[in-house]
Amino acid sequence: MGFSEREVIELLANVFATHDKRLLIGIGDDGAVVTGSKQQVLTTDIAVEGIHFKSQWSSPYEIGARVAKANIADVLSMNGRCEYLLVAASLTGEETLEWIAELARGIAEAASEAGAIVVGGDISSSPSLQITITAIGQTERPITRGGAQVGDLIFLSSLTGWAAAGLHILSNNLNTHSEVAVKALSEYKNPTLDLTLDFSTAHAMADVSDSIFAQGSQIADASRVALVIDTSKIMASDEFMSLQTLAQELNCDPWQWILGGGEDHVLLATGSHLPGIQIGEVVAGSGLSLQGQAAGEIKMAPVSWSHFNKE
Amino acid sequence: MGFSEREVIELLANVFATHDKRLLIGIGDDGAVVTGSKQQVLTTDIAVEGIHFKSQWSSPYEIGARVAKANIADVLSMNGRCEYLLVAASLTGEETLEWIAELARGIAEAASEAGAIVVGGDISSSPSLQITITAIGQTERPITRGGAQVGDLIFLSSLTGWAAAGLHILSNNLNTHSEVAVKALSEYKNPTLDLTLDFSTAHAMADVSDSIFAQGSQIADASRVALVIDTSKIMASDEFMSLQTLAQELNCDPWQWILGGGEDHVLLATGSHLPGIQIGEVVAGSGLSLQGQAAGEIKMAPVSWSHFNKE
Repeated sequence: MGFSEREVIELLANVFATHDKRLLIGIGDDGAVVTGSKQQVLTTDIAVEGIHFKSQWSSPYEIGARVAKANIADVLSMNGRCEYLLVAASLTGEETLEWIAELARGIAEAASEAGAIVVGGDISSSPSLQITITAIGQTERPITRGGAQVGDLIFLSSLTGWAAAGLHILSNNLNTHSEVAVKALSEYKNPTLDLTLDFSTAHAMADVSDSIFAQGSQIADASRVALVIDTSKIMASDEFMSLQTLAQELNCDPWQWILGGGEDHVLLATGSHLPGIQIGEVVAGSGLSLQGQAAGEIKMAPVSWSHFNKE
Repeated sequence: MGFSEREVIELLANVFATHDKRLLIGIGDDGAVVTGSKQQVLTTDIAVEGIHFKSQWSSPYEIGARVAKANIADVLSMNGRCEYLLVAASLTGEETLEWIAELARGIAEAASEAGAIVVGGDISSSPSLQITITAIGQTERPITRGGAQVGDLIFLSSLTGWAAAGLHILSNNLNTHSEVAVKALSEYKNPTLDLTLDFSTAHAMADVSDSIFAQGSQIADASRVALVIDTSKIMASDEFMSLQTLAQELNCDPWQWILGGGEDHVLLATGSHLPGIQIGEVVAGSGLSLQGQAAGEIKMAPVSWSHFNKE
């Protein structure tokens, strides 16, 4: 490749440069030094080319933003505020300096939107392109998957399914330019996080990284309750009509996207008064079930929450 | 492969199980929740099979311990105490559950020795085996590479070169079982960290991850001073004779190992009264130079501190 590790580190130090007062010692020493907080959320996520993203589908900016947001969403879903990101990039040597700079800009802007900064990382050559981001946030009151109570209502911060629809368009190489298709592609490539909604009074919470089926079942299991999702309530939500229009255009089942698709990183929470869309309620029992207008026609997809299993 | 992601996560949750009071919410939710601290060191390191380690050379336990220690040493070298590790493991599918368990045990025991705990991570399938560890530590007074002052003495927490000697034996497939060869192999496979020495009054510090040449030059550059290493002082150190014996047995130059080899993760520091071996002094000027008995015969190796460049 036409550049040294030193050049890459200088480039990254530039892209990630900040005057943020939380950062005491930045990129260039053995470790970064930051201002900590009493209770912290720590999370890390691996993204591998060909499994979690594809370079032919997404720009490096989008790849960076998407991987960063997957981590930031994990902090949000613990009721945390993301503060710091560390970026470990395994590069194949095929990437240009401009490609790496765009990847870094995508990460930096996703961080900035969430009030976080990139404080360090590592790069290595590798047989395969991989990006592993670690996020560190602060939380006054962590919310786990285990706090759902019988009588809670179930909320989504916004409608799921857009990223799955985008993935469908990309993986089938469909030629569509409708407004809803553009939104679906955008949500797959660079999902919108619901950063401004206040879910701090939720009893249980997870981000929908895999699917409502998957994360809903996890909340039910961890809380030893049953989650009942009301499809009529989802159908009454603002965005349902748009997503259904796209599903009709592509001859797809919108419910597979909404309930079986993930990576929108929408928040799924239980509680009494939360923002977003109210989609069901918590009852005694176990697992996740559907009721409402469309419930009879929906084939419950198997819970395939694992990229690992898909291989 | 014969197991699911869920099985691996259960296995890892078992190996990393802890009653440590700093851990508020452990493996199994969207993120771990821990007790933070006022000032923190954050660092991350990628280790790629074939570049940073080889499965035919090291057991999975040794690989785990070595990658964990590289991160822990980065925290130590900032004058930090390592508290938490996050482990991102990209697996090819060739690994057995027992292999993964041993990798995890190596990480867990290296963490434990340093007073740290493994609080979370991620696994993914991948075309290549990679382990990325993020370490989070606390520090009251961070020590950077930039604080060396003219008049400081230079200290090593213990003699460098053992890991480089071990790497030489392995990469040349040498058949030696002398006591010193066994030590060299052990230091390459699972380096001993100098955890009990008090370097908290150092003015500048780095861990020798690449070489004394590399990290010494970095300290000189960052501090705008010159480092003069006295080879006579190194020759007078306890372990020098052993390493020289091994070098003679293998017909190698011990100075290349000591000054040009890394990955022992020994601490290199400047200050007035520090433990370990006093190996030189800080003077006005720039860069790193050698003086003393052996200085004339030593060919200054190029500073090849980058795994990335080696590709």
